[in-house]
This record gives sequence, structure tokens and C-alpha cells, in this order.
Amino acid sequence: MSVQYIVELFGTFFFAISGALAVKDSEHDWFGASFMGFITAIGGGSLRDILLGSYPLVWVGDINFLYAIIAGVIAAKIFFRLLERLRRTFLLFDTLGISLFTIVGLEKALSLGVQPEIAAIMGMFTAVMGGVIRDTLVNETPVIFRKEVYASACLAGAVCYLLLNASVHLDRELNALLSAGLIVGIRLLAVRYNLSLPRFL
Amino acid sequence: MSVQYIVELFGTFFFAISGALAVKDSEHDWFGASFMGFITAIGGGSLRDILLGSYPLVWVGDINFLYAIIAGVIAAKIFFRLLERLRRTFLLFDTLGISLFTIVGLEKALSLGVQPEIAAIMGMFTAVMGGVIRDTLVNETPVIFRKEVYASACLAGAVCYLLLNASVHLDRELNALLSAGLIVGIRLLAVRYNLSLPRFL
Amino acid sequence: MSVQYIVELFGTFFFAISGALAVKDSEHDWFGASFMGFITAIGGGSLRDILLGSYPLVWVGDINFLYAIIAGVIAAKIFFRLLERLRRTFLLFDTLGISLFTIVGLEKALSLGVQPEIAAIMGMFTAVMGGVIRDTLVNETPVIFRKEVYASACLAGAVCYLLLNASVHLDRELNALLSAGLIVGIRLLAVRYNLSLPRFL
Repeated sequence: MSVQYIVELFGTFFFAISGALAVKDSEHDWFGASFMGFITAIGGGSLRDILLGSYPLVWVGDINFLYAIIAGVIAAKIFFRLLERLRRTFLLFDTLGISLFTIVGLEKALSLGVQPEIAAIMGMFTAVMGGVIRDTLVNETPVIFRKEVYASACLAGAVCYLLLNASVHLDRELNALLSAGLIVGIRLLAVRYNLSLPRFL
Repeated sequence: MSVQYIVELFGTFFFAISGALAVKDSEHDWFGASFMGFITAIGGGSLRDILLGSYPLVWVGDINFLYAIIAGVIAAKIFFRLLERLRRTFLLFDTLGISLFTIVGLEKALSLGVQPEIAAIMGMFTAVMGGVIRDTLVNETPVIFRKEVYASACLAGAVCYLLLNASVHLDRELNALLSAGLIVGIRLLAVRYNLSLPRFL
Repeated sequence: MSVQYIVELFGTFFFAISGALAVKDSEHDWFGASFMGFITAIGGGSLRDILLGSYPLVWVGDINFLYAIIAGVIAAKIFFRLLERLRRTFLLFDTLGISLFTIVGLEKALSLGVQPEIAAIMGMFTAVMGGVIRDTLVNETPVIFRKEVYASACLAGAVCYLLLNASVHLDRELNALLSAGLIVGIRLLAVRYNLSLPRFL
């Protein structure tokens, strides 16, 4: 059992929590919350693998990912009760999820032989598209279009990984840790200080 | 021509009817209604096959499914005129569609060798995701997140099929009939008596 | 470098412009606008290739498409400044995009051996589904459901191509030009004279 495998399981678990908690006014029933956790957890990675034509999809070929999601949904229920601070809990698990998934997705794309620029996009997609699908399904503005720095933090982390890898040939695991840390850092600073990118028009 | 093939064609026909009738305030033109019928009919099965990497997609490889959809859209126009009771007509054809497609999708996934839990999800996806895509496109809350028991009825039917198959080794066609009947029963009871699952939070 | 390849690159460029300009009240930042340009440009072709199981996706296998998108997003920023007439600029580039992509998608589907009816749908999907995904992500009514003749113009162009090809065996490039011109003509006439298809119900 590799470190990467455990990281991916944990990312799935964190994303399932964030998905199950992403409910509008507590409107969802158990099925709806589980479905949201499921889609958030598998959406980004599934899109990446479909775009790359890489089969079987991770969760189709390995039942442990389904169990990680179920655990995440149950944990969401418990955490929510304990903490009663939805927003912060959601932010924490979502940030952990996107940072881990960016690196996992980037490395998978690279291992399938695509060019670095495409691999960076795939890393970002792995991280954010589950949430985008989730938000689109409940007719909310997808998280990537809101003011905070979100997907661009993932892209920055992916570019950081690629640069460190190409220049100083950093150890893979240290590089992954550093680049994921950069994503967490950018994201939390942006939320804390209300940072945003310049407008397009 | 197997029973399963005819069932799938009829499911496609029913779903095309329900999709074409799923219009907001009769706003759609002929193209819009046909597109909605098409997406509703092929969305779930296409998603299943894409997730499983099973090519060619059913409707790409067999033109009869396109004809079943065209027939469904025309039937929707005629039925609507005859009956003038949109809601009930829609409910009837939609319920027939989801019950048939759950079993068709479940059996296809099993035949491709995935584990039972994943096959159950694929059966449910086959049944409900066409409608989810349809609802998302017109910015309505997807049917699976509304209060009524919908996708969970499909999941119950899929689990019933798997249990009957694993325990008493029921004849495949009888099992399919029973499990599809369970879905219809749960769905119609839930609508009739306004049943819903407990809230998540 | 074939004519078809250059046409596809230009279609991608035009679509990236239209996507980046498709902002609600100038709300998007640079990342959001680039993401919208990207999704609009690659959405339809990616969906076509995924539905047909044709890998690698065009933009995954050839980095030039990513560069065409980046060029389009920058051009959008410049054009908007120069022209300050968002609606017309958008209409022009979007119409060029859908006409080129319909023919490109149709020809690719035919080359993969699907039946003409399916190829026509694939041509239309290539043209309009990027915009549909774009509109769905920002919770707008997808362009294909608005009153104007849009996707049906693409379908008419695709049918025109198939008929000319089957009947008079027209030279491929002349046929492509004529059919793309028909799409542009129908679309611009529909916008100019406010034409729409008859209602379904």
C-alpha cells in the first residue's frame, strides 16, 4: 500500500465530508447528502480519467473508495454535530481535499505521458471539478467562479510541482508535500485576507 | 431480438416522452423539446457506459434508439393533447423509465465484471442521471434532490435484485420483474403519501 | 498541416473569445474568464470524442489547441477594449465557431464510421455543447433553449453536408464551405429578423 494510495483515500474521505456538508439550508435528506458527498469525491478524478481515457476509473476498480466516501458522509454528520461551525469545517476539509487531489491528479496525468501544461490542468480538474459538478447540480455559482482564489491556487501548486521537478529534481514526496502546502497556504491566506484576482473586463 | 433489448428500447421511448414533457411553462420549441427528450433518454446510459469505458455507447452503435426517441417525442406531443394532464402522464412514463433502466444498467454493469455495490450505483445512474442532466440544463433542482423518494427507490430495487440473485438464485427475468416492480411500488407510494427520507442535518 | 487542422485551430480560437466574453456583468476575474474560454472551446469536441470513445482528445494530444485558447482569451480582452460592443463581437465569433465546429465534428464522426444521423448529432454537439456547458456552469439558460435558432441551424448545416455528399458527391472542401455558410446564414438571419421555431406544446 503506497503513500500515494493512502493520500488518495484520505482526499476522497475529506471531499466526501465537504460534499455532504455543502447543503443549502440543511435541505438535503440522507440520500441527497450522500449523493453530494459521492459526486464531490469522485467527480474530479473521474473527469480526469475520462478525459485521459484511463480505465477503469479509480472508484470503479477499487471498492475502498466507496467505503471512504461512506465513512466521510458519516463523519460529516458527526463533525457537524460536534462542531456546529459549518463554514470552517467545510473550508478545512475542502482545502485539504483540493491540495491532495491536485498533486495526485497531476502525477497521474504525467504518468500517462501527457505534456506538463495538460498535466497541470488535469491536476486542477481533479481538485476542483467534483465541487464544480456539485455546485452546478444544486444551481449554485460554482466555487471556481466566486471571488476567492480557489482553482488558481491549485494551478499555482501544480506549476510549482512541475518547476521544482524540472529544475532541482526534488524528491517526489517532498515536492508533493511542498506543492500541496503552497495550495493550502494560498487558499487560506486568500480566505483570511479576502484576496482576489484582478477582473477580466 | 432479446427481451432485454426490447425493454431497453421501451425504456428509451418512455424517457424521451418524460423528457419532452419536462418543459417549464411550455417554453420550449420543437428543437428544445426534442433535445430534452434525447438527453433524458440517453443521458443515464451514456454516463454509465462512459464511467465503465464500455464502447460503443448503445445509441451510437444502434440507430434504433434514435428512432425510439423520435417516436417518444412525437408520442409526447400526442399524449399531451389527448390527456391534458401533464403531471400524471409525466409521472407514469418517468416511473416506468427509471424502473426498467435501473435493472438494465445494473445487469450491464454486472456483465462487465464490476463489484455488486458499484453495479447498484451504475443501475441507479442509468435510471436517474438523464433526468439530472435534463434538470441541470434548465436550471431546475434535479429530481433526485427534491423531497420525494426517487433515486433511493432505484437503489432499493437494485439492492433487491442483487440480494435475490445472490440468495435464492431467482430466475433472471422474474428477478428483474420483481425488482422493477419494487421500484414502481416505492415511487408511487412515496408520491401518493408524500413520503420522504429523514433529513441529513 | 491540413486545411482541416487550421480550421479546427481557428474554431478553437473563436470559441475561446466567445467564452471569455460570455461573462455576466463583468463579474469574472482573469482565471474565471480563461476557464470559460477553455470550457467553451474544448467542451463540445471533448464531449464528441468521449461519446465516440476516440482518444486522445484533440487538446490533450496536441498542445497547440491550448495555445489557441490562450491567444483567444487575450484577443477577447483586446477586442472588447477596441470595440466596446460586446453583443455583436460575441455573436460574430460564436457564429464562426459553431459553423466551423459543426463540419469538423461531423467529418470526424463520419471518419470513425458512425451512421450519418449520429454523425449529424455529433457535429451539432461539437458546435453547441461547449456553450451549453459554459451556460450551465454560470446558471444561465443554455443558448440552445433560448428563442433564437441556434443548434437547429447547426443540425440544418450538418444535414445539408450529408445530402450534398450523398447526392452530388460534391468536393469535400466546397461542401464544407457551403454547409458552414448555410449555418452562418440561418443563424444571422434568425438573429436579425428574430426568427424562432414553433413551440412544442
